[in-house]
Amino acid sequence: MNAKTPIDFWFDFSSPYSYIASEWIDALAARHGRSVRWHSILLGATFQAAELRSPVAYPLKRDYVLRDFARSARFEGVPYLQPTRFPIASHNAARLFYELASRDIEHAKQWARCGLRAYFTRGVDLSDTAALTELATAFGIERPESIWSDQRWKDALRVENDAAIAAGVFGAPFFSVDGEPFWGNDRKGQLAQWLQGSLRP
Amino acid sequence: MNAKTPIDFWFDFSSPYSYIASEWIDALAARHGRSVRWHSILLGATFQAAELRSPVAYPLKRDYVLRDFARSARFEGVPYLQPTRFPIASHNAARLFYELASRDIEHAKQWARCGLRAYFTRGVDLSDTAALTELATAFGIERPESIWSDQRWKDALRVENDAAIAAGVFGAPFFSVDGEPFWGNDRKGQLAQWLQGSLRP
Repeated sequence: MNAKTPIDFWFDFSSPYSYIASEWIDALAARHGRSVRWHSILLGATFQAAELRSPVAYPLKRDYVLRDFARSARFEGVPYLQPTRFPIASHNAARLFYELASRDIEHAKQWARCGLRAYFTRGVDLSDTAALTELATAFGIERPESIWSDQRWKDALRVENDAAIAAGVFGAPFFSVDGEPFWGNDRKGQLAQWLQGSLRP
Repeated sequence: MNAKTPIDFWFDFSSPYSYIASEWIDALAARHGRSVRWHSILLGATFQAAELRSPVAYPLKRDYVLRDFARSARFEGVPYLQPTRFPIASHNAARLFYELASRDIEHAKQWARCGLRAYFTRGVDLSDTAALTELATAFGIERPESIWSDQRWKDALRVENDAAIAAGVFGAPFFSVDGEPFWGNDRKGQLAQWLQGSLRP
């Protein structure tokens, strides 16, 4: 096995657990000499393919997960503010990610972190075109609306969603390394042990 | 807050993550001067109330969770063998638990561990009345079938299921302490931090 095999990391700009995981995945990977391939996806597409629904769609579960989002962020030591409007459509933020990724993947990752932090610590509504335009412009993206309305980036996102579903991704965050799938921010400990080599069957 | 407040722990004899949690919950509680109140419930009843389904009911998720059951057991350092017949009806094993609990809760906990280990490490099918009778008899329960067919223990289980649903339980294992709910074997780390007092909002 090649120790340099990258970790695939799927996230949705509208997913609290994706946000939390986005704050630790690169550092964890670096400690084990791995790189991370970030994939911006739409949870709705994977839910539909797997016949699943968002946990917040179930009344009994909703109260719990809203509490668990904030608690999981405290557990990880990252700031968190539950957005009032939640969940939101995140396709425009994702299309910006792919336009940036086509030129500079590190810049795209920075945008992902910028967007996730804006939504989950300051309540910036990424589904609101005015708010997203302001955030993207401040980040340095020129005319962001011309990017997310471009068929090229719509297609790029669709291709990534389809590839995620084909790879067995049914939620976010989702990780895969050495062919081993990990679902959820709460699999950080298992992922770390896997990378150390002490969790193999 | 009274440091002696017990931890409520809901489990299902047919739940792999419940089995894994049953192996660490008492030791974790003891380290923090807490006791544990064990509640044997039927996941099916809580799923129905919450309009949820078992993760193994979703084809895409099933492959993942079967892998995750065994991996989570390795992560926790407990033996695990995926039962061929899974999931199974666990109401008879649960009724035995309540009969024992009415006389000696520690004995009931021992039965819970005995049943969970039998199913998840040796594949003993607890839904099979002959296999369950043999296991229970070896454990020291006389005429177990006369207990699980007794309306008294059927009612006891129903009352506990209803109480669990009323308490917001929608899966297993489920924990509650100081009014804070924790769902899943994977919340062990958060539960431990909560007991240390460092995870409060």
